[in-house]
Amino acid sequence: MSASSGPSPLRVAVAGLGTVGAGTVRILQEQAALVAARAGRPIEIRAVSARTREAERGVEIGGYDWVDNCVDLAARDDVDVIVELIGGPDGTAKALVEAALARGRHVVTANKALLAHHGTALARAAEGAGVGLFYEGAVAGGVPVIKGLREGLAANSISRIVAILNGTCNFILGLMEEKGAEFEDALRAAQDAGFAEADPSTDIGGFDAAHKLVILASIAFGTQVDVGAVATQGIEAVTRADIANARELGYRIKLLAVAARRDGGLVQRVEPALVPIESPLAHVAGPGNAVQITGDPVGVVDFNGPGAGQGPTASAVVADLIDIARGVRLPVFGVPAHALAKPLPAIDDEPAPHYLRFTVPDQTGVIATIAGLLADHDISIETMIQRPDARHRPGESIPVIMVTYPVGTGAICQAMDGFAALDILLEPPQILRVEAV
Amino acid sequence: MSASSGPSPLRVAVAGLGTVGAGTVRILQEQAALVAARAGRPIEIRAVSARTREAERGVEIGGYDWVDNCVDLAARDDVDVIVELIGGPDGTAKALVEAALARGRHVVTANKALLAHHGTALARAAEGAGVGLFYEGAVAGGVPVIKGLREGLAANSISRIVAILNGTCNFILGLMEEKGAEFEDALRAAQDAGFAEADPSTDIGGFDAAHKLVILASIAFGTQVDVGAVATQGIEAVTRADIANARELGYRIKLLAVAARRDGGLVQRVEPALVPIESPLAHVAGPGNAVQITGDPVGVVDFNGPGAGQGPTASAVVADLIDIARGVRLPVFGVPAHALAKPLPAIDDEPAPHYLRFTVPDQTGVIATIAGLLADHDISIETMIQRPDARHRPGESIPVIMVTYPVGTGAICQAMDGFAALDILLEPPQILRVEAV
Repeated sequence: MSASSGPSPLRVAVAGLGTVGAGTVRILQEQAALVAARAGRPIEIRAVSARTREAERGVEIGGYDWVDNCVDLAARDDVDVIVELIGGPDGTAKALVEAALARGRHVVTANKALLAHHGTALARAAEGAGVGLFYEGAVAGGVPVIKGLREGLAANSISRIVAILNGTCNFILGLMEEKGAEFEDALRAAQDAGFAEADPSTDIGGFDAAHKLVILASIAFGTQVDVGAVATQGIEAVTRADIANARELGYRIKLLAVAARRDGGLVQRVEPALVPIESPLAHVAGPGNAVQITGDPVGVVDFNGPGAGQGPTASAVVADLIDIARGVRLPVFGVPAHALAKPLPAIDDEPAPHYLRFTVPDQTGVIATIAGLLADHDISIETMIQRPDARHRPGESIPVIMVTYPVGTGAICQAMDGFAALDILLEPPQILRVEAV
Repeated sequence: MSASSGPSPLRVAVAGLGTVGAGTVRILQEQAALVAARAGRPIEIRAVSARTREAERGVEIGGYDWVDNCVDLAARDDVDVIVELIGGPDGTAKALVEAALARGRHVVTANKALLAHHGTALARAAEGAGVGLFYEGAVAGGVPVIKGLREGLAANSISRIVAILNGTCNFILGLMEEKGAEFEDALRAAQDAGFAEADPSTDIGGFDAAHKLVILASIAFGTQVDVGAVATQGIEAVTRADIANARELGYRIKLLAVAARRDGGLVQRVEPALVPIESPLAHVAGPGNAVQITGDPVGVVDFNGPGAGQGPTASAVVADLIDIARGVRLPVFGVPAHALAKPLPAIDDEPAPHYLRFTVPDQTGVIATIAGLLADHDISIETMIQRPDARHRPGESIPVIMVTYPVGTGAICQAMDGFAALDILLEPPQILRVEAV
């Protein structure tokens, strides 16, 4: 490098050259001048590391030092920031981030699993070392919601977050509605389209959304990251019929991640739920993400955009690098890590209407039995659909669909125990919360 | 004050104690502990100023020094930040901000008119003095879109912003749809509800939205703030019939603020337009605001929430104070003010479908004449509604409504000149762009 009169560059090492890693390299190459103008100085890659050196990545990495063992990046004296894009809650990613913080390097990561499992400890390490740990890309891809919550809404007492945080599930649910597909077919289509992994269990089981939720909850409520406390239910049991019924009732089904503070406890749950068709969350299409935050005194603010993919997540990673280059230094979760409160007790959310679908024998009196048992548990029915489908033959099973008035989870569970005891359901009931968002 | 072992407080003076000023005082009083935890140190008001000392504000200001002439606040040695909530493009607000920056004080303001008219010069002054000039509350109220754009999307080359930036207009248009009200009645209702000022011309004429738009455009495109270049049209000429027609065609009418860079020029316009009912922008209700930003490589990101009012705007003001307390220092418009490019030439936006409403005599051949004249200007009709309303009597005037295929503004203007020459329109035509958002 020739002598320069300009400001010193921010020197970066990138570990992990998959989709997001290659996208990060691409922005720093193709938009170098724009990035430097906004960052106040050039941001330059000095070294890279990945599992295999030779691979078709769509970007040229020949100009950077190659490092076989990514953890060695942390020891380099010519690097200010380690960008960790390996993924996974433990293993190499954790070893690298810990080593980097221990050596006084800033860290940028998009690794939600790592932060969900070790966020509090890593934040302590970063703040103890006086370096930044930034992770905009870990939640909602290209949507700058970490910054929006931690900084933009910092004056607010946050009461509730309702979010769509998993693009794979949103894509699958959208396909089920659009094509009238059952879950398994939509999953396969999502895999073919590159929107779902070969092993999709982390996504469709709701665990990825749970990882992202606890990061948001920690910032929102000033509590230690507590991934174990999330009540998590995936989308596997949502049927085409549920989606059609929901539409008829004026709703869409979305995998919602909800965090709320009330009565000294914390609600943290991920589950498919009905949202009103007029809600902004109902209009999040394809692999999109959305985060709705309620705070005092701001009210309700929505963030919405592409939740995954090369460009969006790399956009978030490079925004973090620009923050570091600009000299922005913030407590990792919005307050100093040592001041994060212990996890609050996990509690149930407030009563809400519930969507219930029962499969029962087509015989006289069965509706009366259902209604009676619900009434026994103080569950009132607001709407009911009981209509055999076109292929129905007398004597076969029939679906009974209802939406209740607001009711707590406890009453619903007790009523379901009652149904189990009566043995009148031919299939397990479908129970989905209706979320007022 | 007793000696303290904690970090030194950020000392604030508030100028202007109207709705937003009182809201700012309220947050700093009622959420002092939360704000201090996030800011890393207390944020304390030391002095206040407003037009009259005695007024019912809902907050107690007796504990702060009162200053009659707010410009004197800038000279105080016990103040780190001046919060300017007076408003207006010139006069006292400008004098105070200039004096504060000249004295090396940070400034937080929610004054869009001031920034729209003097933003570049004020940014130079702030950056020359090495102090912050923050203005999250100036655009979209409680929605942290300045931060989202300037920091969260800093890695992107921004191509387009489409936004709803005036809560008053959005409230009025919503009321017109909901109640089937004409503009004048909806305006009066908005005034009665406190959502429109006694002199509503700045809001309904689109000028307030234009002020906010040029601030966003400066950050997005790295150009000097150029309020003179905005083509601005208000909502006064939108009728109940237009809103009903739009709904029938699958759209809602919104006052849109659009900034786009293309072909070396800059589109900056504020005008009522049709947005598809499926668009997030169509679902912005009441006095809400929304900003849709398209960038490369992020794609499309939406920010959405309360665009005005005490709580939301004060939330933004205090977020800026927290940023300053945390030590965040950023170029005012995303790049150093001296590096902002000169305003780009104002250009027309890309061709788009247009909604046209003509009022014509109910006589044979008139439709053919209209269609022929449009065809002469290469304007193709995609949809047409020609249906007398229930009260129509033969021989009276009739409305003809059509949506064109994409067409440039130039062709539309030429066709309208043609109609004027033919003298077949009984009223001026209604011409609204259909925005693909």
